[in-house]
Amino acid sequence: MQIVAAVQTIRERLKSEPSVAFVPTMGNLHQGHLALVRQAREHGRCVVVSLFVNPLQFGPNEDFSSYPRTFDQDCAKLEGLADIVFAPAVEDLYPELQQIYVEPSPLADELCGAFRPGHFRGVATVVLKLFNIVQPQAAVFGKKDYQQLHVIRAMVRQLNLPVEIVAGETLRAEDNLALSSRNAYLSAKDRTDAVRLYRNLALIRESIVAGNRDFLALECAAIADLKAHGWRVDYVSVRAAKSLEPAKAGDMSLVVLAAAWLGKTRLIDNLEICLNADKDL
Amino acid sequence: MQIVAAVQTIRERLKSEPSVAFVPTMGNLHQGHLALVRQAREHGRCVVVSLFVNPLQFGPNEDFSSYPRTFDQDCAKLEGLADIVFAPAVEDLYPELQQIYVEPSPLADELCGAFRPGHFRGVATVVLKLFNIVQPQAAVFGKKDYQQLHVIRAMVRQLNLPVEIVAGETLRAEDNLALSSRNAYLSAKDRTDAVRLYRNLALIRESIVAGNRDFLALECAAIADLKAHGWRVDYVSVRAAKSLEPAKAGDMSLVVLAAAWLGKTRLIDNLEICLNADKDL
Repeated sequence: MQIVAAVQTIRERLKSEPSVAFVPTMGNLHQGHLALVRQAREHGRCVVVSLFVNPLQFGPNEDFSSYPRTFDQDCAKLEGLADIVFAPAVEDLYPELQQIYVEPSPLADELCGAFRPGHFRGVATVVLKLFNIVQPQAAVFGKKDYQQLHVIRAMVRQLNLPVEIVAGETLRAEDNLALSSRNAYLSAKDRTDAVRLYRNLALIRESIVAGNRDFLALECAAIADLKAHGWRVDYVSVRAAKSLEPAKAGDMSLVVLAAAWLGKTRLIDNLEICLNADKDL
Repeated sequence: MQIVAAVQTIRERLKSEPSVAFVPTMGNLHQGHLALVRQAREHGRCVVVSLFVNPLQFGPNEDFSSYPRTFDQDCAKLEGLADIVFAPAVEDLYPELQQIYVEPSPLADELCGAFRPGHFRGVATVVLKLFNIVQPQAAVFGKKDYQQLHVIRAMVRQLNLPVEIVAGETLRAEDNLALSSRNAYLSAKDRTDAVRLYRNLALIRESIVAGNRDFLALECAAIADLKAHGWRVDYVSVRAAKSLEPAKAGDMSLVVLAAAWLGKTRLIDNLEICLNADKDL
């Protein structure tokens, strides 16, 4: 496995690669990331993983400076899974004040975007930059960041990017908490209660599969439960899986998404609800 | 020469091309365009010219619907110069409502951008889409659209696009009017007076080369002359050639740009002013 820091170097290195599969990450890798890297292997001869904490996608009061940076451990975990680790310096990826952005669709201002203004603009912009440097034929993104996956897919479609976007399933701890770098922020007590987010999403899914279409009532009940247990809720929302528009009664492919704070830690999670498939069970 | 309309077809066709040089145009080709196409030949084995009147870069009150479309003549002119003409349908390049844009730098809101809100956003977005489809190693843009060239260069730099941007000199009629598709809109009488725009720019250049640094006075004099002859002036502005920021007294590489209306026709032009080189003469 090769570790490359400079933009120019990775360009040279990849010039002769006929097929690159790419997994962009912010590092602090857990099994969820590693599953995406394994998945990438099926989509390209050369697997490139980027480790880059992107300042552009953090708000002024967010955790950019405190975001865990664990470069050596990340490289050790990737050994044998990735061919190239690309870990550019901030000054190499942003040598001048970034003034040109990918402006994502208005939907990027909803859900997480409503609480993190400019977040998806920062995500879309850095992903486009990385795509242009790595020039992969496929890139893998986790469903854990469901709205991010949606924004990237829309960008690829609407800007005609020559990249196939592959979605990776969310990995979960034994108690079903979605794996996330930010779980490390949780106190032992909060870690125990953290699964409440998943549990509420699972309840909503169960209820919808059973025929309930009162999405608003389901959302409110979940919000009330979380609040009653000390969470601060950004949103719980049932959406159409493809468009991420608010769900309508006739939609068959849904997703319920949530973001909520446990102490100073913001957790997100989501569950897809495929009504056709569930009916067949 | 091959003519391709479908996005998917040109992707397939170019897959095996090791080196593509690209000239994006809106068609209605004149000698200025053809010079860019000849220049492209020096930068790639396969020369692709796109003919596409891009709705995204026209304002609601601009000449999108009346913009001259001369497909057959354009193809005849390109015969022997280009290898592939790419002429996509609007519905093929924009199969859904375009909601994802390249947002260019704040400078795109000055000069032409101040009078054509959203114009450079539309230009940058379609050029990025075309780049992603054609995947050229080099693309040629005329200096006639100087601010456009600046926006594209900034986009390539800040989004790490793997494309070399080549600038083509402005071609002029015998009386020095810059060649432009919009010249065809001019009445015979207006055509005679049209060179006044160039003449004012040339006067400004002459004066600056002679040592004058009162840019504002020079701009105002040009505006007054044009107005006195019935023109409606959008701007006359002396700028630093590289940054397009307003010129400062010590700048050695300048450009004077102008946009003005003769009747219903908006003309633009510019002249570079290289003080070092002029001194050496």
